[in-house]
Formats: sequence, structure tokens, C-alpha cells
Amino acid sequence: MKIAVDAMGGDFAPLEIVKGVELARDQFTDIEFELFGDEKQITAILQNSDRVNIHHTDVTIDMGEEPVKAIRRKKDSSLVLAATAVKNGEADAFFSAGNTGAVLAAGIFVIGRIKGIDRPGLATVLPNLSGKGDHEYFVMMDMGANAESKPAHLYQYGFLGDFYAEKMLGYTKPTVGLLNLGTEEDKGDAVHKEAWQLLNGSDTLNFIGNVEARELLNGAADVVVTDGSNGNTALKAIEGTALTMLKMIKAAIMENGVTAKIGGALLKPALKGLQGKLDYSKAGGAVILGVNAPVVKTHGSAKAEAVSNTFAQIHQMITSNLVPDIQAYVAAHKDDLSAKQLDAEQDN
Amino acid sequence: MKIAVDAMGGDFAPLEIVKGVELARDQFTDIEFELFGDEKQITAILQNSDRVNIHHTDVTIDMGEEPVKAIRRKKDSSLVLAATAVKNGEADAFFSAGNTGAVLAAGIFVIGRIKGIDRPGLATVLPNLSGKGDHEYFVMMDMGANAESKPAHLYQYGFLGDFYAEKMLGYTKPTVGLLNLGTEEDKGDAVHKEAWQLLNGSDTLNFIGNVEARELLNGAADVVVTDGSNGNTALKAIEGTALTMLKMIKAAIMENGVTAKIGGALLKPALKGLQGKLDYSKAGGAVILGVNAPVVKTHGSAKAEAVSNTFAQIHQMITSNLVPDIQAYVAAHKDDLSAKQLDAEQDN
Repeated sequence: MKIAVDAMGGDFAPLEIVKGVELARDQFTDIEFELFGDEKQITAILQNSDRVNIHHTDVTIDMGEEPVKAIRRKKDSSLVLAATAVKNGEADAFFSAGNTGAVLAAGIFVIGRIKGIDRPGLATVLPNLSGKGDHEYFVMMDMGANAESKPAHLYQYGFLGDFYAEKMLGYTKPTVGLLNLGTEEDKGDAVHKEAWQLLNGSDTLNFIGNVEARELLNGAADVVVTDGSNGNTALKAIEGTALTMLKMIKAAIMENGVTAKIGGALLKPALKGLQGKLDYSKAGGAVILGVNAPVVKTHGSAKAEAVSNTFAQIHQMITSNLVPDIQAYVAAHKDDLSAKQLDAEQDN
Repeated sequence: MKIAVDAMGGDFAPLEIVKGVELARDQFTDIEFELFGDEKQITAILQNSDRVNIHHTDVTIDMGEEPVKAIRRKKDSSLVLAATAVKNGEADAFFSAGNTGAVLAAGIFVIGRIKGIDRPGLATVLPNLSGKGDHEYFVMMDMGANAESKPAHLYQYGFLGDFYAEKMLGYTKPTVGLLNLGTEEDKGDAVHKEAWQLLNGSDTLNFIGNVEARELLNGAADVVVTDGSNGNTALKAIEGTALTMLKMIKAAIMENGVTAKIGGALLKPALKGLQGKLDYSKAGGAVILGVNAPVVKTHGSAKAEAVSNTFAQIHQMITSNLVPDIQAYVAAHKDDLSAKQLDAEQDN
């Protein structure tokens, strides 16, 4: 299999991207890497060119650029060239740690939507920290690809998330929940009330109803369906709170003088374990589900190990046949999933 | 001043409510309490009836009841009777630890909206944990009173939150931010884009633009404006993550055996300090801003001390003249704040 890599996207690109490529190359003997970016810089880092092909470009898309404009104007950027290679069948998947909006736009406009999916969305795998059962992770989508959603889009996220949980996390009949203001059926705005009805009416999904943000990390559901706005808020609130608390524990240790410092030193392995459980980069990057190939955006601050974990995730996406299976399912259930059809039914 | 108290609302009512009333009664010599609820139960708990009047009723509204139906059908419930006392001028403020939706409905339909405020919202005070500056808290609204918002409602929340931060937290020209997907001006759905324009156009507010959920606890703004859906998601995600992390730190200490246990014991004061900083019940309960009297809903699980803190908050709301000042401001700026007027302008 071939993975097209935007070698210039990310806070530590190309250094950590190239190092991550080499880690993954040594781990997976069946991956060939097509790297797009500055040849000189890449060559200077690369220790071994086995199964690594470099395609030179000195054009890059920056983190702050307006995504859609950037991908239209910079067709010879490392990001767009990598996506184009996938479109042209020269690679099987697209990796970037760059501008999230631009990766999303390249996924949708260059690689293309799956026919029958109206709005591809951003899926993230987060840790289930309940300590109960053997489901270490859950999938949540959309995390912010779309600022506005219709009920049918949320319904489609349910199916996409369900496929991801089954294929990638190995869950049988994963539970699917809808993020909402409260657990009762009639909670939320009109979009969420209608989405509840659609999800609940599905014979395929194991829908368990509304879930609240308080229970996300506590194993509320294997698949959490949300509009991009609330998904983004939940993810960032979780990240912000976790970071703040770790910082405060460290500060509290310092403030409380010698005794607490000894306590802190003795507690170090425990805190490290905690940090490890919170580190969801082990499960890879954020996936654009609903497009015609694996497209994965890893964190801009990702170091080599997180980059390599993302390649492991892409490797599994390809070997598990995730995208072709979604395509086949959506084609076979076109009418049941179509936003147009569902809207028409709701109007009757 | 007189505070009308729903003595039967909350997980530990009437015990903790009555104990909280006595704590506050002993602290504030100018408060008289009008308690609505089961006279026998209240009398059995009450140690001293100074400045505490009991109004008997054996009807209560439960946590799970549909709010609007409940307040319509149960006019003689402790919750509705307390709100009615405020409406009739027999008390100056309304306190409850009961069904949030019912408290909200009673605030809006019994006590009434401030003329010129289209949608009263739920405001919560949360800790600023940045460790920078002297602003220990920030105000955020709406936390879930309204599942759907128009730009003008968000604009009005900006003014209500600004008043609260000035009067109650003592902040001069508090910074006002809009919770959104990203910090750039054009982020979010149409409602957030228009709300940004309205807030940015205000000569009164110190608007600093969009803020992200990751920075909330890190002092993003003194006043955070949000629609009820994202506000609710952010609050619950913060609470859930904080609870999960505290639980995990304890579990990590246990799992790592004797060494970590000693570490944990030595670290205890530091962790206790952390828990104290996270405990935002010190700043009182959630306030329904935009109604014609102080209406405060404290956490259902509140114990006597949190109940008493909420009375301190109500005491300050009354002595600082918060509600009359909001009423006067809104009356003087009716046209600038009106949703109807703002919608008409946006259509032009």
C-alpha cells in the first residue's frame, strides 16, 4: 500500500514527520511512502530511503490560511499534491499534520465525498476512562468539520462512526449515543430532536439515546454522534480541563513545599500512568469520514511517535477495508440515508 | 430583605436546605427567610426560628417532571409558591435546589421576563485557573436554558453577563468573548457570525472576539457568551473531565502500591487545594438572568454550606441592586437591544 504524506504540514515539519515515517516504515513492511515537500530538507533528515519516495515542492499551506482559498490557489503545495496523488490512484491514503480546514477541504474537494454521504465529518477516537469493560476508546463525530448540521447529517454520522468502531476498534454492535443537553428523548433543538427520531428508527444501529457531555470519558457510548459545534466544544473543553488540572497538580506540589515535593516524586509513576491514559494520540489522528479514501489529520504538535501511530491507524484502515465497505454499504442503502429523502419524509 | 426558599427541592431537601438557611441567617442579620414546604419536616430540623417563616405545603415538583407542565399543574408546590411570593412582592428573591427546568419556567412565567430581554438565560460563575491576574472567576451564559438562540439573544447575554461581572465580581470593563469553533471572526454557523458582528459593534461592551473551549478555565474572558447547547456541553465536559481526573489520580495512587500511597498522603494538602479551586459552588448557584428578581438555582446535590453560599450570592445581588440596574439599562437602550429591531437591521 502507498500513503501520500504532506511532509511540510505541522509545527515540527518536516523533522518529526520524516522521523515518524521512518518509524512506521520499519514497523510495517508493506507500506510505501510518497512524501511531498522540500526535497533538500527531507533528504537531510531521512536516514534510509527504503520505500520512501520524495516529490519535491517548495509551496506550503500555512496554519492560518483560509482553507478553501488555499487549496484552490496552491495546487502545487505539499498538502494538495499529496491529496491529488490519492485522487489519481497513485496512493491509497492521505496523511497530514497541517491546517485542519485545508486537509478537510482537500479531502472533500480533491479526493471527493462518498456518493450518498452529504457532509463528510471529522471523527476522533477518545479514551473511555470508566475502568469498566474492555472498550478502551470511543469514536466521536463530527468534531468541527461542519458548523451547521441537518438531522440527516447527524444520522449519517451515526453510520460512519458505527463502521469505524466495528472495523477499527473491533467492537461488535457498538452502542451509539447522541450528544445532547439531557438524556430525555425530547431534549435539545429541532435538529437534535429529529436526529434522535432518525437514529432511534434505525434497524442497523444500536442506538441508546441521548448522552451528556459529563459522561463522555466515563464510557457513555462507543460512538457519540454530535454536530460539529458541540463536538468541537466538548473536545476542547476536555483537553483544556485535563491540561489545566495536570498543570495545577504540578503547581500545587511546588506551592506546598518539601513534603508535597516528596509526595510528588513518589507519585510520579502514577501521574505518568494518568497522562498515558489521557493521551489519545495512541489511537492515531482525526479521520475525515465520508470521503473516498483514508484521510487522516494528526495533531499539529505531533512528534515522531504520534506521527507513526497515525500511520499504524491508516495501515489498519486500509487492511480492514474500511472505506470500500462504507462505500458499498452507502450504495446499498442510498435511499435510507439520503438527506433529501429524509427531509421529504419529515415534511410529510 | 426577604428570600423565598423552595425548601423541598434538591437531593438532600429539606435537611440541607434548612441547615443552609440557618447558616446564612446567622451570617446575614438583614435576611428574612420565607420557607415553602412540609412544616412538620422543616420544624423537626430547624433549631431556631428567628427570621424564618414557614409556609406549609405538601406538594412538591420532582427532578424528573416536565418543567412547564409541572409549574402549570402544581401551583401549590413549594417551588411555585416560593416564586409566586416574589411575584406578589412578598419576597425579594427566589431560591431553589430543585428541578432546573421548573425553576427556569417559574422564573420566566411566574416572576416574569425583564421587558426588552427576549430570552432569559442561565448564567454560571466558573473558576479562572490561569493563575494570572486577580480575576478568580468568569461568568458564562447561557448554560442551557435555551436550546436554540438567535444572534440578538447572544448579544443580550453579553450585556447581562457584563452586568453580572461588574456588579457581582467587581470587574471594571470586563472582557467579553464569544464561545466558538475558532478565534477568527468568520468562524461558526450563521448565528455565531452575526452575533460576533453585533457584539463587536457595541460601544458598551469590551468585546475581545471569539474564544475557544480549550481556554475557558485558562482565563479566556471575564464574560463568555454562548448558546445554551454549547454552554451546556462545555460545562458538563469540564465537570466530567475534572471528576474523572480526580478519580483517576486516586486510582493511580492505589494501583501503584505503597510508594505511591505514601506519595498520595504527602500530596493530600495539595490535592485538597486543587479540589478547592475547582469547587465553583463557593461563587453560589446558577442565576437566571433576564427576569424581574434574583432567581438562583443551586446544585441539586448541594449541602448546607453550598446552600448558604448561594444565599450570600443572593444577598449581594440584592444589595448591589443588580436586577433594578439591569431593568433601567435595558429600558434606556430598548431599541439597541431588541431582537426584533436587530433582526430587521440584519435583513437590510
